[in-house]
Amino acid sequence: MEETRQKKVVVALGHNALGYTTTEQWDAVRVTAKALADLVEAGYQLTITHSNGPQVSMIHKAMTELRRVYIDYTPAPMCVCSAMSQGYVGYDIQNALRAELISRGNTTTVSTILTQVTVDPYDEAFYAPTKKIGRYMSREDAENELKKGNFVEEEPGKGFRRIVAAPKPHDIVEIDAIRLLADNGQVVIACGGGGIPVIPQENALKGASAVIEKDAIAGKLASDLGADELMILTTVPCVYLDFGKATQRPIERMNITEARGYLSEGQFGETNMKPKIEAAMEYLQKRPGGRALITSLATVEEALAGKAGTILTA
Amino acid sequence: MEETRQKKVVVALGHNALGYTTTEQWDAVRVTAKALADLVEAGYQLTITHSNGPQVSMIHKAMTELRRVYIDYTPAPMCVCSAMSQGYVGYDIQNALRAELISRGNTTTVSTILTQVTVDPYDEAFYAPTKKIGRYMSREDAENELKKGNFVEEEPGKGFRRIVAAPKPHDIVEIDAIRLLADNGQVVIACGGGGIPVIPQENALKGASAVIEKDAIAGKLASDLGADELMILTTVPCVYLDFGKATQRPIERMNITEARGYLSEGQFGETNMKPKIEAAMEYLQKRPGGRALITSLATVEEALAGKAGTILTA
Repeated sequence: MEETRQKKVVVALGHNALGYTTTEQWDAVRVTAKALADLVEAGYQLTITHSNGPQVSMIHKAMTELRRVYIDYTPAPMCVCSAMSQGYVGYDIQNALRAELISRGNTTTVSTILTQVTVDPYDEAFYAPTKKIGRYMSREDAENELKKGNFVEEEPGKGFRRIVAAPKPHDIVEIDAIRLLADNGQVVIACGGGGIPVIPQENALKGASAVIEKDAIAGKLASDLGADELMILTTVPCVYLDFGKATQRPIERMNITEARGYLSEGQFGETNMKPKIEAAMEYLQKRPGGRALITSLATVEEALAGKAGTILTA
Repeated sequence: MEETRQKKVVVALGHNALGYTTTEQWDAVRVTAKALADLVEAGYQLTITHSNGPQVSMIHKAMTELRRVYIDYTPAPMCVCSAMSQGYVGYDIQNALRAELISRGNTTTVSTILTQVTVDPYDEAFYAPTKKIGRYMSREDAENELKKGNFVEEEPGKGFRRIVAAPKPHDIVEIDAIRLLADNGQVVIACGGGGIPVIPQENALKGASAVIEKDAIAGKLASDLGADELMILTTVPCVYLDFGKATQRPIERMNITEARGYLSEGQFGETNMKPKIEAAMEYLQKRPGGRALITSLATVEEALAGKAGTILTA
């Protein structure tokens, strides 16, 4: 296979691209596949990453119920549930995208690389976990979690849930495999759910009780691969100023300096738009020639024609 | 990265390389990793495949229990459980092998490619399923499975279990991704559990209620990749004639004609050694210059020195 001259793009997919249950995911990825196939047809080489919150929660719940019924089974730590979720989501995306591409006469290989991502055990996120995971627990179960050194949070009227840290991604362990496939024009799904978070311990990598934000890993992946473009596909067609207010207005383009200004004004939602803007900025700082596009799945085609979306440049 | 001149080997790992529960698997893969690292140090490029019977059973049970407790979740078909098991096993192997290699100063990239494998819907195996999967069911649940068109088998005193077909592998859907990594000297884990069995339907691939034998897929993978060697690592140090009888004796070498003769005498166990011999024969028919080695994990090093194992040649 020859090195291709296609533009490389890293695409980040959010929950809305995947749905919550096995059947919803199956239906959702077929819609998502159309938008992704549009990008392939537009001449892009795609490296795709995706969130896995509902998927890893489902698997974590399932493994907990399993152990309740069959006591011989040992618990499945978060890293194992995360690995399972990469298999689960990766399979559905690669299957749906392959079918959509073939229906358009395109036989590009689509595959998923199971990915670990190192995090720093001293990342401040470990001292203030924020990500809720898994099922609702009783007070008794919550106290057991606390005894094990885990964090829990009460949701009034609903029960307790485990919360884990969302540390920054350091190194993508399997980057050489991902790069080789991307450099040869294949479609690669990688770093699913942000990657399996691992902490280096001597020569080994130990699974961490953590979740890496998919936007953060998408930015890291885009800079590591030297991508020409980072596309963050979410639920809104573009980034807005004064989001949700009477004065709401779209941003068509912004550079890093403008983005930094808006961030300091607190313009972007803490858990939704802010991490996307920050991921785009990190990528652009390392690849100043690149560009980042934030738009929705439904408006990808318009965005490619310059009629939707927000473009960030250095 | 440059094309390497290493010998390519496809390694098939059985249940004993992996264990049954999450903690057993974690311990088992660290032992398995030593044998695999010996092969890397001996100059081989490895493509690794593995069985997933206990793993996919565990996940299938977990997803069934999940749905019993949380009725909003939709069922997870076998293909989805199989994808999850590839994530689960692949993660543990790639993590353990990477650590073992690094402890020996070797930084070869190890990754897992999520793999689908097509099967023929008219494969005769679909008319006589043989592979037991999942939990024991009550008579009532078994009758519900029958109504859905699934097969079940009663195990006296224990209950009913679903049985699925074990059709022959046709095409490895993601072979181009696997080949690219293998041709560039990386270690690849692929076709876990025989691959996710899928049936072509127009442009799409539909998950099949089936299991592909890991030995069969290992042979297919070895011939597709043009591997110099196929290594099937199992529980016995070599193939025996009159296995388990007073006249039991090891086979050091055999060619296809000899193997065919032994098969017609019924020398090899229907569900354990016979599929291995058949996989080796299929590979050697397509790659007559190759060789197949059947030995145990514990005797790999001796086998490399010609002191253990059975070697098959065309």
